[in-house]
Amino acid sequence: METPAQAVIGLCRRLAEFTEEPGHITRTFLSAPMREVHRELRGRMEELGMTVTVDAAGNLRGLYPAAQSGAPRLLIASHLDSVPHAGAFDGVLGVVMGVALVDALAGRRMRFAIEVVGFSEEEGVRFGVPFIGSRALVGDLGGVGGDYSAALLERRDAQGQTVADAIRSFGLDLARLPEARLAGNTLGYLEFHIEQGPVLESIDYPLGIVEAISGQSRLGVCFTGQAGHAGTTPMKLRRDALAGTAEWITQVETIAGATTGLVATVGRLEIDPGAGNVIAGSVQASLDVRHVHDPVRHTALEQILATARQIALRRKLAVTWEQRMDQPAVAMNAEMTTLLEQAVQASGYPVHRMPSGAGHDAMILAAKVPAAMLFLRSPGGLSHHPDENVLAGDVLAALTTGLHFLDALENGQRTAERRAAP
Amino acid sequence: METPAQAVIGLCRRLAEFTEEPGHITRTFLSAPMREVHRELRGRMEELGMTVTVDAAGNLRGLYPAAQSGAPRLLIASHLDSVPHAGAFDGVLGVVMGVALVDALAGRRMRFAIEVVGFSEEEGVRFGVPFIGSRALVGDLGGVGGDYSAALLERRDAQGQTVADAIRSFGLDLARLPEARLAGNTLGYLEFHIEQGPVLESIDYPLGIVEAISGQSRLGVCFTGQAGHAGTTPMKLRRDALAGTAEWITQVETIAGATTGLVATVGRLEIDPGAGNVIAGSVQASLDVRHVHDPVRHTALEQILATARQIALRRKLAVTWEQRMDQPAVAMNAEMTTLLEQAVQASGYPVHRMPSGAGHDAMILAAKVPAAMLFLRSPGGLSHHPDENVLAGDVLAALTTGLHFLDALENGQRTAERRAAP
Repeated sequence: METPAQAVIGLCRRLAEFTEEPGHITRTFLSAPMREVHRELRGRMEELGMTVTVDAAGNLRGLYPAAQSGAPRLLIASHLDSVPHAGAFDGVLGVVMGVALVDALAGRRMRFAIEVVGFSEEEGVRFGVPFIGSRALVGDLGGVGGDYSAALLERRDAQGQTVADAIRSFGLDLARLPEARLAGNTLGYLEFHIEQGPVLESIDYPLGIVEAISGQSRLGVCFTGQAGHAGTTPMKLRRDALAGTAEWITQVETIAGATTGLVATVGRLEIDPGAGNVIAGSVQASLDVRHVHDPVRHTALEQILATARQIALRRKLAVTWEQRMDQPAVAMNAEMTTLLEQAVQASGYPVHRMPSGAGHDAMILAAKVPAAMLFLRSPGGLSHHPDENVLAGDVLAALTTGLHFLDALENGQRTAERRAAP
Repeated sequence: METPAQAVIGLCRRLAEFTEEPGHITRTFLSAPMREVHRELRGRMEELGMTVTVDAAGNLRGLYPAAQSGAPRLLIASHLDSVPHAGAFDGVLGVVMGVALVDALAGRRMRFAIEVVGFSEEEGVRFGVPFIGSRALVGDLGGVGGDYSAALLERRDAQGQTVADAIRSFGLDLARLPEARLAGNTLGYLEFHIEQGPVLESIDYPLGIVEAISGQSRLGVCFTGQAGHAGTTPMKLRRDALAGTAEWITQVETIAGATTGLVATVGRLEIDPGAGNVIAGSVQASLDVRHVHDPVRHTALEQILATARQIALRRKLAVTWEQRMDQPAVAMNAEMTTLLEQAVQASGYPVHRMPSGAGHDAMILAAKVPAAMLFLRSPGGLSHHPDENVLAGDVLAALTTGLHFLDALENGQRTAERRAAP
């Protein structure tokens, strides 16, 4: 017989068969295979006595009612879309974990309802904008000035379809988008997700408790020197933009290594002219800097840019940069995170608190709801890759932790209700 | 009235108008505009009493006869083809200088004939093989095993035409290719060429005497680490192929800077996956190393590769390389070069001996004929660029030097003839 952990992994792998590209796992926002994922999950949810709807943003929402009406609601959620050529667990695991926890309750009603949500969009692949699903729940499809919503709905995918077209083609009613918002009393938000990094594996822990989602700076940094003939230009007369960039990359690495918890990455270079026998005239480099504390990130970024300036000055290069993202860190809710930590301990697993270097739906929900997030170890640190995986033992650890967490919330609710009683 | 130096520059600029691409200077092997360049130069040569032919490799050859028959022959030559979007002087200047020197003789016959050659091909643009013109003169269109000739003639350009097709379309007789070889007694080879680098400008000298053409090593060097998420992979758990490559590039620069006369260049990187938010999994780098002494070049290359190995070992990367070129240095003829140096001094200009970091036709001819080469300063170090230029004062210096060189050869011949007399 299949264990609950094996069932979770099996369902994730079954859902991975619903893809836009045979032989790969690719499932973008409101694509045809998303309908099949919904059908499959709806079936499981309804078997468990849940009420299932798809909201106008394409989020699959299964409600497991509380023991009494008027009770608050706990959200357990993650996303059902994927990057191109993805693995089977990024996102999907968090939704399937929600279903598995309801299943494990074996019909027992809690003092709070549980709403398991499969967000329609997190990766930002189809329209170049991430978090469309979770943003609909917090009513934040608008940005600064509130007109982002219209702008978002008019965005076009590679085939020229707009977001509005995609919603209508999926059979959804755009006018009901406001109904996607969270209504009533939401107790909290819990997201299970693969770590997508090597930290838990390196310390041999199954689970990690996310304290905060790192803030991110993304910049384009351009060094300009003088292109020249690789044979006829002596070393001393060169203004080699690539040699300058290389020196800077080693400094980016050194600065990041000297700052606890900081990650800084140069992953992309555009070299002009980029020929083996021509000294580089200019190099456009990407820079990605992340930390859970925004002031630490900003200080490190200033240091990295000051180094760029010094290197450029000494080498007679010009350096310019353009900030493309300055996204603040988002803390998880302290109380919920402590409950989650206690649940990990109660389950007999070691506790490791850590930042999330990647963005997650929890980051969006945290703006409105007390949010907590649990990472499961990623074998090989792999994600966004067909070999992405989870271990059955780690899924069991997460399920046990989840049940302890539900019990703790139940106790909390009981106490709160008693206090509120006359 | 136009000075001789202005006439040289004027003729180079006029020839630059014969191009395959309006608005640019692009003139490849046996292209239509090459015919117009031949017509223009043939006219000038015939006015000066030269006998003009085009050999079966498409080289324009103008013979200015000696005072007596049976005399040896001095070649003054360079190439008439260009890179795409070239300047007006690379190659062409050396041919026009030959014509200008014959002009300056004002009908005076020397004890040697002067053959001014405009090589049909040096840059290797059309068929990906350089020096087709000069190789025909030394009878070296064959390579190892002697079958390169047939292979060369079957090579195709971007339009699918073979070298043999190109020769026939230009109205030339492939069967007469062997007649293109140097015949009789060749006294020497003299090539005027723009420096294509910044050295003469940096020391404010008009002329440079080429001692040797540097040997070249070209390699592809590949560092392989582990791609990973830029947000979730702590610095200490990374195996970043680009950070390793960057460290190595700074070492390549340091090693080259510490070896007199060595140039080493990394000008091209292919980064996989090459995204701003992904740690580089592998980087393929070009490496170009040049020096006039082959043992110095080989030692430096070993040092550069040993450094790559050390960096890879420390960073847990793999490193591999592939040698793509190991071209030995070619010395110019010592006696001819001394004559050229004396001619520079006699003309009242300062002497600077230097290597050529770029390949030239002189390198091919040196295998069979005592060769010498004179560089003219390149303003801004520019070449293979529309702004490529020469200064009229420097052309005057080169013309004066050329006439002194002819006089010195004449004296040498007189002495030799006297000695040979009974």
